[in-house]
Amino acid sequence: MLRTHTCGELNISHLGQTVTLCGWVQKSRDLGGTTFIDVRDRYGLTQLIFNTDTDVTLREKSRGLGREFVIKVTGDVIERASKNTKIPTGEIEIAVTDIEVLNAAKLPPFLIEDETDGGEELRAKYRYLDLRRNPIRNNLVLRHKMAQEVRKYLDNLDFIEVETPVLIKSTPEGARDFVVPSRMNAGEFYALPQSPQTFKQLLMVSGFDRYFQIVKCFRDEDLRADRQPEFTQIDCELSFVSQEDILNIFEGLTRHLFKTVKGIDLVELPRMLYSDAMRLYGSDKPDLRFGMEFVELNDIVKGKGFSIFDNAELVVGINAKGCAGYTRKQVDELTEWLKRPQIGVTGMIYCRYNEDGTLKSSVDKFYNEDELTNWAAAFNAEKGDLMLILAGGADKVRKQLNELRLEMGNRLGLRDKNTFAPLWVVDFPLLEWDEESGRYHAMHHPFTSPKPEDIAMLDTEPGAVRANAYDLVINGTEIGGGSIRIHDRGLQSLMFKHLGFSPEEAQKQFGFLMDAFEYGAPPHGGIAFGFDRLASIFAGLDSIRDVIAFPKNNSGRDVMIDSPSTIAEAQMTELKIKTTV
Amino acid sequence: MLRTHTCGELNISHLGQTVTLCGWVQKSRDLGGTTFIDVRDRYGLTQLIFNTDTDVTLREKSRGLGREFVIKVTGDVIERASKNTKIPTGEIEIAVTDIEVLNAAKLPPFLIEDETDGGEELRAKYRYLDLRRNPIRNNLVLRHKMAQEVRKYLDNLDFIEVETPVLIKSTPEGARDFVVPSRMNAGEFYALPQSPQTFKQLLMVSGFDRYFQIVKCFRDEDLRADRQPEFTQIDCELSFVSQEDILNIFEGLTRHLFKTVKGIDLVELPRMLYSDAMRLYGSDKPDLRFGMEFVELNDIVKGKGFSIFDNAELVVGINAKGCAGYTRKQVDELTEWLKRPQIGVTGMIYCRYNEDGTLKSSVDKFYNEDELTNWAAAFNAEKGDLMLILAGGADKVRKQLNELRLEMGNRLGLRDKNTFAPLWVVDFPLLEWDEESGRYHAMHHPFTSPKPEDIAMLDTEPGAVRANAYDLVINGTEIGGGSIRIHDRGLQSLMFKHLGFSPEEAQKQFGFLMDAFEYGAPPHGGIAFGFDRLASIFAGLDSIRDVIAFPKNNSGRDVMIDSPSTIAEAQMTELKIKTTV
Repeated sequence: MLRTHTCGELNISHLGQTVTLCGWVQKSRDLGGTTFIDVRDRYGLTQLIFNTDTDVTLREKSRGLGREFVIKVTGDVIERASKNTKIPTGEIEIAVTDIEVLNAAKLPPFLIEDETDGGEELRAKYRYLDLRRNPIRNNLVLRHKMAQEVRKYLDNLDFIEVETPVLIKSTPEGARDFVVPSRMNAGEFYALPQSPQTFKQLLMVSGFDRYFQIVKCFRDEDLRADRQPEFTQIDCELSFVSQEDILNIFEGLTRHLFKTVKGIDLVELPRMLYSDAMRLYGSDKPDLRFGMEFVELNDIVKGKGFSIFDNAELVVGINAKGCAGYTRKQVDELTEWLKRPQIGVTGMIYCRYNEDGTLKSSVDKFYNEDELTNWAAAFNAEKGDLMLILAGGADKVRKQLNELRLEMGNRLGLRDKNTFAPLWVVDFPLLEWDEESGRYHAMHHPFTSPKPEDIAMLDTEPGAVRANAYDLVINGTEIGGGSIRIHDRGLQSLMFKHLGFSPEEAQKQFGFLMDAFEYGAPPHGGIAFGFDRLASIFAGLDSIRDVIAFPKNNSGRDVMIDSPSTIAEAQMTELKIKTTV
Repeated sequence: MLRTHTCGELNISHLGQTVTLCGWVQKSRDLGGTTFIDVRDRYGLTQLIFNTDTDVTLREKSRGLGREFVIKVTGDVIERASKNTKIPTGEIEIAVTDIEVLNAAKLPPFLIEDETDGGEELRAKYRYLDLRRNPIRNNLVLRHKMAQEVRKYLDNLDFIEVETPVLIKSTPEGARDFVVPSRMNAGEFYALPQSPQTFKQLLMVSGFDRYFQIVKCFRDEDLRADRQPEFTQIDCELSFVSQEDILNIFEGLTRHLFKTVKGIDLVELPRMLYSDAMRLYGSDKPDLRFGMEFVELNDIVKGKGFSIFDNAELVVGINAKGCAGYTRKQVDELTEWLKRPQIGVTGMIYCRYNEDGTLKSSVDKFYNEDELTNWAAAFNAEKGDLMLILAGGADKVRKQLNELRLEMGNRLGLRDKNTFAPLWVVDFPLLEWDEESGRYHAMHHPFTSPKPEDIAMLDTEPGAVRANAYDLVINGTEIGGGSIRIHDRGLQSLMFKHLGFSPEEAQKQFGFLMDAFEYGAPPHGGIAFGFDRLASIFAGLDSIRDVIAFPKNNSGRDVMIDSPSTIAEAQMTELKIKTTV
């Protein structure tokens, strides 16, 4: 090795040793006849000292080292005069006897510090420099550790990691596929997998019993903070298990990760029915770091002549604890926030429970103090609280109130990144109605099993059929989702029929899977975790970008390597394709 | 769980326990009033017993179970009358009290046994059934175990696994790229990586110090037994190391895998110069399971009037130990084998060292017994040996003799699949001349560093420049290859110049990397192992197909899912591409 130690490991126990370190010049400062240089590598930072009295040539050489120069230094470990207790190497420094510049560096376009002065675009272009910064690199070290722990846990439980193909077949279900023209089969295309779903089910048919894979998946969808064209799943499937078994095993995985990576002992994960999640939080991924459950008011507010409430399918609100002091301006501003097109609320009703015990609402004309007292009771409100109420169509108003609840959570500081509130949401509907296409879509995917007791309703009330499907939610983010699968050809055909497939289409697209079901398919189910999202939650980040070494921007571009790009005419000719731009 | 135990774990210690098993019916046989059924899962096989005297209905039901039916049985563990010592569960059987058919099965199109009657195509179409067979599944279990051990070893040495992007940029160097049309950037394409080479180098520039990844790579090349369009690499890179350090660390990895997965203690890996490998074995990936080194004869055979030898650049042979008894017919047949167009030998000379001590060659007209005695001495031949000699241009004849040596190794049983002879081949040439394009190509890749002492020859004698490059070879197969990389912009530019890139082309394709070298790039190097090949060698297979769960055939097709396939017109419209077939 070019070095004897890393820049993170020397301490008082190494005093007197002659060592060689390699790393980057973090910073340099002159103090009279002495130059101090901090040299940095992945493992830490060590202070070097050069002194005119000891070696004037060497000291002068040290003054020529710019930021980010790559150097190799040899010297003796000595005790520091003024110690830095904040870093592990803070008690020592290296009295340098020899220095070699391994590579010079131009001045970086932004500061390589924990807090940098570089804008997002600049840092994306020089991603390799941004990755030098501790916060970014630490995210990737964390991600590595998580992946290792996932594998340890699953390997211990007899899961086998099997690689499934990346060049597969395009299917019309779900999101848009990325496709790959085939040269050997001109005119035909592979598709990149949105998930290894059908392959992992086939592995169950093959008797693999317990499969997992940490695997790249691809979706050609418009991008946002938590979406990338390529993303990573922890993909798992098991045979001969019930939903209960799966929840237990992967609750175990979640617990293992929190324990080994974050040092956190999770309590038992609560389980919530999808219907309850929608009723109490207006979301199938409730953030349980705070309460502020929805309170439905139809029974106590209707029939008093306030037409907005009288005409609404649902009147529902939340209690913003301690917010009675909100000024009129603050309330108006909140109402404006709700009126933005993304949320689309037309108006918000509020009721203050003042510190003096009086109740004051924005609809005093219709409700007297006695009635407002009933409201307060329904909300479990106390003096100092502010009740915020929306009214309208049930589905829509729940979504809107969910936004308001999360916003109030933010404003009240109830969504701390170091607090983790995971839960299972269970009993999802099998199908959801899609207005645009005028037909039902699979809420999870077409391979999800309906609850046996609900199958009879498929013909009569498809929207009410519940699935053996479940999501793992942490802090308002869906981290994992899965289901017990269909393993019977007849039921799978019926499912495709309800999704609007003709028997021919179903056979053409998924014939291999339905055929496989006829050769002895075991009952099976599984789950997939969004690894990028899980890592970003562990890292306390809002976006998945910084748990990915080389992410793409919102236009799907990697600005560092300038990709995608045009390709040579000859390449297209060979692939027998043309662009029509 | 639907079961209390797997089909592989019950033994005499479980006697008397009531258990529930799930699995597939392997086979069934009637013996008087008794039916025996073997039920199989990934973990093993357990015998079930049904008896008319005990429960006539149940026994009748058991007779209705066909091969590959999926069943769930409950019963008591009892001691077998006639034990099978070959399997761990062979001392017990289950006296079944309840049986449930979880899924029926059609008769499989081929036997699900270790030896099957299914042809290759049929098994490819029903890959999910072929994967049920023990030999195939065991390969994938082995592969899983290898991957886990690779990760353990590297994690212990502070390597971090970092995922690099799959959607990258097409480059003209190396093999043909698979490309992916971009919808958001119409007219432009991503490419799938042939390796994460530039990204792992950027991670070194970022200070990641030690990186690895077990990662899918892609090459759109014509296929054969050890090539698939998608394949898996164990990809590694390190900073601040010399070639020696890399060889040591990855020799350690090789040793660790052989020890933990195969239970084999490897001796220290020999290191061979590329030039020696070519001279002694005619190959840069010599199979060292056997000797039979090349013997060069120019000095002792020339000038005796035999024009074929006199005109040849090189006369070189091998000693086939104990083959003096080869009949004329056998020798002729061997000569014919060498004349096939793939090898292209025009003629072979031989010399028998007969058991009676006489020497007899096919060119006795030109060489007397004394001269043949000199031959025998050069070959270290003994009575009973057969010397086989080729002559011609040096490069060509070495390649041909390599084929002959391997063939003789096969015929003499010297290439046992359970013997492993790994070695390092070092000091590869930096460049190789390409007749077709009339220019030098990078033998490894354009990022490989020349040996510092050879850089001066780049202008004068490019073909003689040696690289800091090395391969790990096992049993005649290249398993891994790597190099110390260039980390200096100037040298990298020079390298591109010698490869025929204009400065503009070099900047357009690899500007991001050369720019990165200017911001403090550390000395670094790495290696990549072909994981499929390594796994196939561990599994004792000739092809990589059966260490891959869902491989493609030689036309790049997955016949099970019928991919690639045509895509919808609407998909192409959205991507702004057209096929020109």
